[in-house]
Amino acid sequence: MKIYCQKDVLLNSVNTVSKAVSNRTTLPILECILLTATPTVFKLTGNDLELGIESTVAAVVEQSGNIALEAKIFSEIVRRLPDQEVEICVDEQNITTIKCANSEFRIMGQPGSEFPALPEVEKLQEFILPQAELRNMIRQTIFSVALDETKPILTGELMEIKQGALHMVAVDGYRVSFKKIDLSIENENLKAVVPGKTLNEISKILSSEEENVSLYFADKHILFDLGGSIVVSRLLDGEFLKYEQIFSKDYETKIQVDRRSLLMSIERAALISRENKKNPIKVQLVNDKMIITSNTELGTAHEELTVEMEGKDLTIAFNPKYLIDVLKVIEDDQVCILFTSSLSPCIIKHLTEDIYKYLILPIRLNT
Amino acid sequence: MKIYCQKDVLLNSVNTVSKAVSNRTTLPILECILLTATPTVFKLTGNDLELGIESTVAAVVEQSGNIALEAKIFSEIVRRLPDQEVEICVDEQNITTIKCANSEFRIMGQPGSEFPALPEVEKLQEFILPQAELRNMIRQTIFSVALDETKPILTGELMEIKQGALHMVAVDGYRVSFKKIDLSIENENLKAVVPGKTLNEISKILSSEEENVSLYFADKHILFDLGGSIVVSRLLDGEFLKYEQIFSKDYETKIQVDRRSLLMSIERAALISRENKKNPIKVQLVNDKMIITSNTELGTAHEELTVEMEGKDLTIAFNPKYLIDVLKVIEDDQVCILFTSSLSPCIIKHLTEDIYKYLILPIRLNT
Repeated sequence: MKIYCQKDVLLNSVNTVSKAVSNRTTLPILECILLTATPTVFKLTGNDLELGIESTVAAVVEQSGNIALEAKIFSEIVRRLPDQEVEICVDEQNITTIKCANSEFRIMGQPGSEFPALPEVEKLQEFILPQAELRNMIRQTIFSVALDETKPILTGELMEIKQGALHMVAVDGYRVSFKKIDLSIENENLKAVVPGKTLNEISKILSSEEENVSLYFADKHILFDLGGSIVVSRLLDGEFLKYEQIFSKDYETKIQVDRRSLLMSIERAALISRENKKNPIKVQLVNDKMIITSNTELGTAHEELTVEMEGKDLTIAFNPKYLIDVLKVIEDDQVCILFTSSLSPCIIKHLTEDIYKYLILPIRLNT
Repeated sequence: MKIYCQKDVLLNSVNTVSKAVSNRTTLPILECILLTATPTVFKLTGNDLELGIESTVAAVVEQSGNIALEAKIFSEIVRRLPDQEVEICVDEQNITTIKCANSEFRIMGQPGSEFPALPEVEKLQEFILPQAELRNMIRQTIFSVALDETKPILTGELMEIKQGALHMVAVDGYRVSFKKIDLSIENENLKAVVPGKTLNEISKILSSEEENVSLYFADKHILFDLGGSIVVSRLLDGEFLKYEQIFSKDYETKIQVDRRSLLMSIERAALISRENKKNPIKVQLVNDKMIITSNTELGTAHEELTVEMEGKDLTIAFNPKYLIDVLKVIEDDQVCILFTSSLSPCIIKHLTEDIYKYLILPIRLNT
């Protein structure tokens, strides 16, 4: 194999496929990046068997071939090369020479044939949305993916195409996060539960520019086509929580509140609890006032906010982290919160539309 | 005690004195910040018994008094308060109320009388230099302070006033870093060995603006007066290394080289060595060329640089980290390097003046 390419485009692709390189594995080949050169294309691949990423690099291919290079050393070398043309050349003993300006490296590679191929995903139907939108959907839901493996299906997020929209839902034992975006498509019905880890890695390579991503659903996999890069992820098996019913439209108390002020008040009140201890904060709704208090062995905090309130007075308590997680990712200035009773979940949502909804379980107060 | 001040100036002082608050100690009072209000001044103090910092806060004092508040919770509360006026009020049971806009905190304090006072330092003679200069001197030498405690004196830096200049010198077993700045003063002779930890913390609070710092030397302590803040540090006991003789002016080979190019070449060559292993890099000087090579089980690196060379050809090997540390902190485009033999230290210095000098021991090459 022998190719020439520019350092910056090479580095870009190395950074992209590195997201799918395994850090610690019993199969050392998975710690490598595969370089593949054909007469028409030069590409890099990372694959930890759960997540695979392939990225094309603009290059002149003088000789086809492939090689698997240890990702850590290869990416460090590329990162530090001068911003000039890079030559990569592999001999028959898999010794790989990397030249750039007055620098020359020789490292040992492994035969590309030992690297596991990405799963084939049949591109049956394409769903297109802006990369920035998908990144936002992930950011606004991923925090409530379950971290423990008690119910493996909940360590992933539901991605569902229905009623002309993409729905994303994440659930752990204490909260549900829901986000929707219209896709201007015909009525389709498709579902996939994508591992949280995959979504975390993908969101790092999704562009914030005006580029699109295409989604393809298959039985065992989902494929994201980002243009220059392709991401293929294994799906989780099993039935996801039926989330539609739990977002009740009934409420006893409804408030509209300034999101940033509420976030800052809760963050302050949460200071009066040691890390690792789940001291609840108490929320009182009375006379268009929201009074947030916290009381621990460290001291007390008292916060007051003016809100627009409809319905009954109410006292309820929450783990402040769950409220903070939600209020941090919403971008609107004002949010609506629905309450039913001290023992029922609250729902944080958009003032008028059903584009995001967050359900949070309360903590029972000692009376 | 009862005072009023602005949140931003309070936070500034909290951040400053926090540098001297102990993180883990058997004496819990040292994890506190002392607040002291007199009719004329409101100030904060942190003191871990090695390093003490005092910072004045512009405030209205309604009632004098003092209180020691746990630094972690107090600083977190202050950081998150709205940008408005803060009221701090302490009652007779040491319960401290912090109010700001619609937020109110109550936390338990400890009597200020239990907090250890800063050592008194007699201000005999003042040495003034710009804060940015002192910060730079620390940055350019601190990395070669000894980390192990075999010779405790070397865990500090020598600060020496002599020949109208301030000299700073740091030495571990493998290298010496020297930096000098003229003070336009009469001939004085003063010495102090200041703990590396103190210098690290001070450099974080030294301003990069055009403010001055005054230094006062005492028998057991050194005092830095930064205007709004005062830093007092214990000194290390013992005799510092006599560093003057080891910077020989003789050489067999002298080169002038572009600092950034050299730094980048060494950083690349160093990639071909696993972290934690001290694989040397080999430097060959021949015909106005500097050839840097590295050869480990990972592979090989080969770098070439053009240099201005005077004297004999030479081959020598170094721990690349020691060269990188020095080349990173120098700000000049070109540096001069003197060599005597493959087994003698090299000296990296300014092209013409004696304002900084770095000595680095080589590694014996297996031949």
